[in-house]
Amino acid sequence: MAGNSFGKLFNLTTFGESHGMALGGVIDGCPSGLDIDVEAIQNELDRRKPGQSEIVTQRKEPDTVKFLSGIFEGKTTGTSIGFIIENANQKSKDYSHIKDVYRPSHADYTYDKKYGVRDYRGGGRSSARETVCRVVAGAIAKQLLKDVKIYAYVSSVGDISLNKPLNELDFSLTESNMVRCPDTETAERMIERIKEIRKEGDTIGGTVGCVIKNVPIGLGEPVFDKLHAELGKAMLSINAVKGFEYGSGFEGSKMKGSEHNDIFNADGSTKTNLSGGIQGGISNGMDIYFNVAFKPVATIMQNQETIDNQGHVVEMHGKGRHDPCVVPRAVPIVEAMAALVLADFYLINKLYH
Amino acid sequence: MAGNSFGKLFNLTTFGESHGMALGGVIDGCPSGLDIDVEAIQNELDRRKPGQSEIVTQRKEPDTVKFLSGIFEGKTTGTSIGFIIENANQKSKDYSHIKDVYRPSHADYTYDKKYGVRDYRGGGRSSARETVCRVVAGAIAKQLLKDVKIYAYVSSVGDISLNKPLNELDFSLTESNMVRCPDTETAERMIERIKEIRKEGDTIGGTVGCVIKNVPIGLGEPVFDKLHAELGKAMLSINAVKGFEYGSGFEGSKMKGSEHNDIFNADGSTKTNLSGGIQGGISNGMDIYFNVAFKPVATIMQNQETIDNQGHVVEMHGKGRHDPCVVPRAVPIVEAMAALVLADFYLINKLYH
Amino acid sequence: MAGNSFGKLFNLTTFGESHGMALGGVIDGCPSGLDIDVEAIQNELDRRKPGQSEIVTQRKEPDTVKFLSGIFEGKTTGTSIGFIIENANQKSKDYSHIKDVYRPSHADYTYDKKYGVRDYRGGGRSSARETVCRVVAGAIAKQLLKDVKIYAYVSSVGDISLNKPLNELDFSLTESNMVRCPDTETAERMIERIKEIRKEGDTIGGTVGCVIKNVPIGLGEPVFDKLHAELGKAMLSINAVKGFEYGSGFEGSKMKGSEHNDIFNADGSTKTNLSGGIQGGISNGMDIYFNVAFKPVATIMQNQETIDNQGHVVEMHGKGRHDPCVVPRAVPIVEAMAALVLADFYLINKLYH
Amino acid sequence: MAGNSFGKLFNLTTFGESHGMALGGVIDGCPSGLDIDVEAIQNELDRRKPGQSEIVTQRKEPDTVKFLSGIFEGKTTGTSIGFIIENANQKSKDYSHIKDVYRPSHADYTYDKKYGVRDYRGGGRSSARETVCRVVAGAIAKQLLKDVKIYAYVSSVGDISLNKPLNELDFSLTESNMVRCPDTETAERMIERIKEIRKEGDTIGGTVGCVIKNVPIGLGEPVFDKLHAELGKAMLSINAVKGFEYGSGFEGSKMKGSEHNDIFNADGSTKTNLSGGIQGGISNGMDIYFNVAFKPVATIMQNQETIDNQGHVVEMHGKGRHDPCVVPRAVPIVEAMAALVLADFYLINKLYH
Repeated sequence: MAGNSFGKLFNLTTFGESHGMALGGVIDGCPSGLDIDVEAIQNELDRRKPGQSEIVTQRKEPDTVKFLSGIFEGKTTGTSIGFIIENANQKSKDYSHIKDVYRPSHADYTYDKKYGVRDYRGGGRSSARETVCRVVAGAIAKQLLKDVKIYAYVSSVGDISLNKPLNELDFSLTESNMVRCPDTETAERMIERIKEIRKEGDTIGGTVGCVIKNVPIGLGEPVFDKLHAELGKAMLSINAVKGFEYGSGFEGSKMKGSEHNDIFNADGSTKTNLSGGIQGGISNGMDIYFNVAFKPVATIMQNQETIDNQGHVVEMHGKGRHDPCVVPRAVPIVEAMAALVLADFYLINKLYH
Repeated sequence: MAGNSFGKLFNLTTFGESHGMALGGVIDGCPSGLDIDVEAIQNELDRRKPGQSEIVTQRKEPDTVKFLSGIFEGKTTGTSIGFIIENANQKSKDYSHIKDVYRPSHADYTYDKKYGVRDYRGGGRSSARETVCRVVAGAIAKQLLKDVKIYAYVSSVGDISLNKPLNELDFSLTESNMVRCPDTETAERMIERIKEIRKEGDTIGGTVGCVIKNVPIGLGEPVFDKLHAELGKAMLSINAVKGFEYGSGFEGSKMKGSEHNDIFNADGSTKTNLSGGIQGGISNGMDIYFNVAFKPVATIMQNQETIDNQGHVVEMHGKGRHDPCVVPRAVPIVEAMAALVLADFYLINKLYH
Repeated sequence: MAGNSFGKLFNLTTFGESHGMALGGVIDGCPSGLDIDVEAIQNELDRRKPGQSEIVTQRKEPDTVKFLSGIFEGKTTGTSIGFIIENANQKSKDYSHIKDVYRPSHADYTYDKKYGVRDYRGGGRSSARETVCRVVAGAIAKQLLKDVKIYAYVSSVGDISLNKPLNELDFSLTESNMVRCPDTETAERMIERIKEIRKEGDTIGGTVGCVIKNVPIGLGEPVFDKLHAELGKAMLSINAVKGFEYGSGFEGSKMKGSEHNDIFNADGSTKTNLSGGIQGGISNGMDIYFNVAFKPVATIMQNQETIDNQGHVVEMHGKGRHDPCVVPRAVPIVEAMAALVLADFYLINKLYH
Repeated sequence: MAGNSFGKLFNLTTFGESHGMALGGVIDGCPSGLDIDVEAIQNELDRRKPGQSEIVTQRKEPDTVKFLSGIFEGKTTGTSIGFIIENANQKSKDYSHIKDVYRPSHADYTYDKKYGVRDYRGGGRSSARETVCRVVAGAIAKQLLKDVKIYAYVSSVGDISLNKPLNELDFSLTESNMVRCPDTETAERMIERIKEIRKEGDTIGGTVGCVIKNVPIGLGEPVFDKLHAELGKAMLSINAVKGFEYGSGFEGSKMKGSEHNDIFNADGSTKTNLSGGIQGGISNGMDIYFNVAFKPVATIMQNQETIDNQGHVVEMHGKGRHDPCVVPRAVPIVEAMAALVLADFYLINKLYH
């Protein structure tokens, strides 16, 4: 109810603040007998972790996951899986510059108004550090989904876009460059742009695309819990996300029905896929694809006017080590959230067969 | 779990097929002592109903709501509110042309694959007729929210867009024209376009914008149930929706942090509102605004190739009276879903004070 | 949240007051393709309905169920099943004698304090008339469970108890007498006792036993949602219930471990069954059995002192046609609630295989 | 869904096995700004912990709770509260005697059948060690409820019962003896009985009573989520519980309405309290009281015949240090579960005012 749980059957509940003792979570509803590849989970965490390349924040966090329950002799037991990620350097920082100050376009003001109290150390619960738990659970969801392949990638940085048709993308290239764009030439331009932005002490937005292959037919519940509605919620719940579109998306709103309809092949597949793999809220076996918009990171290394909690106008200057552009590290988070949604619907769908 | 419920505390569960005996629902969690204005509810239904103007479907349905419980002597009692909308003309139609055929870009194929059975009469449960129940519940949510003002409107039809800043829109004009665009000149062009499309036997997509004023600070739960994540899910659950963006949206992904940050005034309001009234998933008291993309209606009055449930390729031709463009009738549905989301968070927020 | 829904996957949401237009409900999550035997459902309603014999209330209600959705050509479609039961004689009664008066040991006082408003016509939502919807949904759950056999029966009326071992009971006799006790001689004494009580203008309590056979192994979720915990909640949610025990029950608390442990046979069955078919919250394939205590009906045909909503002490006298003993009509309700619990766990269990 | 969560608004999700690395949980929905008394929480854990007296298991576990999030500068922040209790001696034991063996009246057989795999070390997830997390969360719930006083106590051991009217009990004596019976003389006889039983290598059942004072009027949701239905579920979810009754309970089923009805005083209180503080599922401000039956512990220090997972009949002999009678340590667990139920309804009730 208070927003720290996701999923109905494959359910993740998380806790933890950016500078508390540890973050962690409980996965409830993971079927028993699943072989858990802990290395693969840690690998996903490494894709998300700070300090991994020169275009992301230079903070150092090992982000090592520790499983406390639910896995026995390498297999899930069907009981709840508890895990924690200890915060390596949660101590002894000086937060006096933000303790009483509301940073522009952060959650400081709204948290204080909602709760009357706030863990002001580096964003507390509103920090994107919270997504570390999503990546752990998403990695287990991926192992449950086995045959399903989820490929997220950076589709734009500022106004530099990846302008290739989806079927020409080679996702084996995504991890070959530090911005995670599966087109080498575009990747280079994106990296260049991020470096410039960082030098300016500024930040920039971007988009993450995602293609999901081998999705079984029948996932998604019609009416309120349509597959794309849950995917949309999942993506919009990631820090800094401003928009979600799937299939033909916003461009589709400009089209005619005669152009937009996906004509069937005899085997039930479709000649085009403007539906984005989902019809009536239910997967139809074609590739699912969607696009997620991220705003520029709010913490900039420039002077900004703002207010404190007494309503005084003050000047502040960003401190610390922050991402100039969030999308490269968002790629594994988008995949994790997609995996959580699919795992949940995969289990729900088993009910009715 | 099976997708027919929406909302946690202000909860709506719906039932009904397009050509069954009746549609209806149960609202659970509406506080007691609320004066119910039944006329205002019926008025919302009339904004959604078929046959209301020459640019929407010419089907005739009175769509009269009948309340069966939960309201006593004009007030809610705190018990569940049951209601039905009888289908006026559910009988005696001939559906033989679609019984065994999968219409392109409809839900026929996916329903059959998921359930092994399907009410083939006019879309059954997958029909947008289902949204009639959302409008009833949304109208009650609006009455609960009193001071909150929700203004949805048509922001584009095909490539004809309303290109005015939000603060220049006069929402009192929205209902003054049949396309529901609050700019008379643009409205005329949109209406013209829809008439052309109808003549071609084709359909066209569009977008619906929504501005919400007087939202209390503090609505929304951080992490997974962010206010915009639930709004996004709500909108994406409406038939034919392909995308959702709020605040700066997809455009925001092209901006720099120094341009995008909303600088505070001393009273906590912000000089700009690229955040769209939501920071960290929680309303900050500024106007909430978002945009929703609708694809063109899949039923067109043209010949199309498709398949039947034996995998034979067949030719089909749309029959019946359908909307050439869905957005004018979608306006009250977008408002209803926004009201449901806000009512739910309004109640959740009361918990913690 | 507001208490009008039951079940997680096989979910029932109900509405309706004793003297409103109709009661009804929505069943969400019933798998598709289930053949629905409407006559069997109506038969369960007839077992519960008023006026069926001389020892129950003489009110007349046909209690005919009308299905509005979710069933097509005799089969469930996987979409939500809406149904209503119209109140035949909801009109024109005189309730002035209870409008402002709080009847002793009814819910009048607590409803008024909780909600500030109350449908005072014959108990409104707090009336046991509400259970009619449970019987409809339970009857469908029974059809889903097919092989499982649920036998409820009256095990005591006042201090007249059925003192036979469970394995000597012949449940084919339960419906052979109007008190629904599967022992003819005891049944006669119970009927006699109820007739005496009615003559006194008084009421009397009793207990309902229930035995469930052919339960698959593995139903129930350990920790909080143990099978017997949900059965207990289900039974305690029925009007007038004061206690629940399963297996050895309260007697078991007096025993030693060496007496109480159920020793296994080689096939996994047990020589004794003090566990009541459930170990660690999970069904073990042995018969489940439990016992439910019902208090005497609060409405008596005698003068009672009470208060009105202004705190004045007043005298009142019961009016209308009420049950002198609730247990005969409670038998199908106990079965229905047991069926709902089992259907839910049956679906949950499918997830993990 | 998989049973490791409890509560709707004040929600606890737990994890952990008896011999895993740690047990723990997440409390979601605790309001912000609550002063947390960590010592009081640890004190509740100490009431539950093994080794505290000579009539309970002699195992040694410090059971120290470590909070990882959600509490900042001594106050709750409104975000999720994560906590763990490390298992002090989880290592290096020899479990070969139970690895393949199904202990009678334990959960070994049902877990294996349900999950196909089982953490066989000392009961794993089915161990009552799991209740340690309930006590942590219950202690926080108690702090939220402030004025409400919850008094659980041992009401019987085997056939030795506390036969005093509730209003003559002095709950300040409960903690004065190691069996936790608020009557010194009865306590001595209970202790004697437990010592005898232990000498026999046997175990014995018992009951725990609970009285709750100062409950606000209006807690509980009618129909399915009645206050006593949730209390019943809560208690039945505790390991070894076989029955629950509240107010007049099973005795009430023998009474007449004219004896059982609670006549009102002018102020809305009642002269008698057979209702047990709950009418129509909603608290009426009178004391709530209920009784919970616990079976004898299944692990006995005697030879027993049983089977292994191949269906071979084998002889086994209990090992380790187990409780001869579970009720003294169950007292704080009953209180914790009662507190969780009340905290949840306390929050739900705030919604509607």
